[in-house]
Amino acid sequence: MKQIKILAFDVFGTVVDWHGSIKREVEAINLDVDPDAFALAWRAGYAPAMQRVMSGELGWTRIDDLHRIILDEILQAFGVSHLSEEQKVELNLAWHRLDPWPDTVEGLTRLKSRYTICTLSNGNISLLTDMAKRAGLPWDCILSAEVFKAYKPHPDTYLGVAKTFDLEPGEVMLVAAHHNDLAAARECGLKTAYIERPLEYGANHIKDVSPVAGNDFHASSFIDLALQFKTG
Amino acid sequence: MKQIKILAFDVFGTVVDWHGSIKREVEAINLDVDPDAFALAWRAGYAPAMQRVMSGELGWTRIDDLHRIILDEILQAFGVSHLSEEQKVELNLAWHRLDPWPDTVEGLTRLKSRYTICTLSNGNISLLTDMAKRAGLPWDCILSAEVFKAYKPHPDTYLGVAKTFDLEPGEVMLVAAHHNDLAAARECGLKTAYIERPLEYGANHIKDVSPVAGNDFHASSFIDLALQFKTG
Repeated sequence: MKQIKILAFDVFGTVVDWHGSIKREVEAINLDVDPDAFALAWRAGYAPAMQRVMSGELGWTRIDDLHRIILDEILQAFGVSHLSEEQKVELNLAWHRLDPWPDTVEGLTRLKSRYTICTLSNGNISLLTDMAKRAGLPWDCILSAEVFKAYKPHPDTYLGVAKTFDLEPGEVMLVAAHHNDLAAARECGLKTAYIERPLEYGANHIKDVSPVAGNDFHASSFIDLALQFKTG
Repeated sequence: MKQIKILAFDVFGTVVDWHGSIKREVEAINLDVDPDAFALAWRAGYAPAMQRVMSGELGWTRIDDLHRIILDEILQAFGVSHLSEEQKVELNLAWHRLDPWPDTVEGLTRLKSRYTICTLSNGNISLLTDMAKRAGLPWDCILSAEVFKAYKPHPDTYLGVAKTFDLEPGEVMLVAAHHNDLAAARECGLKTAYIERPLEYGANHIKDVSPVAGNDFHASSFIDLALQFKTG
């Protein structure tokens, strides 16, 4: 794989454990809800919210603001009405405090020694920066939908990485735990690596992580991916 | 200075020694020119080239491409006509390989332990990323004129940093070795720190680094700035 120059990483679910982290935050403030269901509901609002932006119904809106719109909806749905504005702002920032998977920091560090590693996330720049600083994620560069003013799976995001670094699409590899993200990247000519994250939706909702045809790599962790590169 | 949340750094001249590094690159390929004069001429074309973009004469053009336009002009002016296209491309990438000042990496590392540190440079994202990877610059985030589609000293760049991080302008401090950059940031409400870089234009052209009124800090190096923060 000599021609790969940059590894671009999906973040939510691939690099960090959003479900476990949101659950932890909800538990920490003793919100009287099922933390598992609350985390899943918050995340479930994510794709439809981005769709409202990409369809033009909403102007460009960052994930922080979309997360807040969804939060207000689910707080109502879960019957929570006692939070102050300040508490809601703080809870919304839970997405800046997501924990990495156990292999993330070591795996990224290994991969960074051979490639330029960047984010390609729908998360906004400040979210990704705060997360990286807190979790010690050693990105060479933080790229975001916010830079390209388009959300994945829009081609402008995948091709945007290649353009930013003056590369051919085939010199960029997307690393992600989601097949739809990888498929869209592949259609743009990027290389793809699938990472198994069976616990993305929590221990009660194990995700099928079987290999799917079309990906250049299929790895159980970032460390496994680094080892495959080394021996590949 | 408790209210400062982010330090945004000018890069060329402030973080890295463009004059010494370009001189080194020109010497390494035995270009038959005065390396000192060549470096100065290349850099002298920089502000006018950005002005052509900001005036609308040129559409949005990255620094890599502006550097190439200037390079072609000065190669002609210096009577160099033997370089192949490949050699010109390679020489142009010298700006991705600028060396840090001796205090840069340690100073940034110290500052990073207390603040989020990012670039705010007119350099493009790939240039800043390549430079950081090569020199070990520990940025939390790489922000660039390329993100804001405006070159400093346009207000969109300084205010763009604050907006990106949901901060008031006064919670952002620009760190730079250039008074015009700092003055423009101050007009936008940012805090400012001046860094003495007397050798920016080389040992034959010592720069006056006397303090100027208006800056919140005046430091002889990044390490000095970190010490001033600690005791301030």
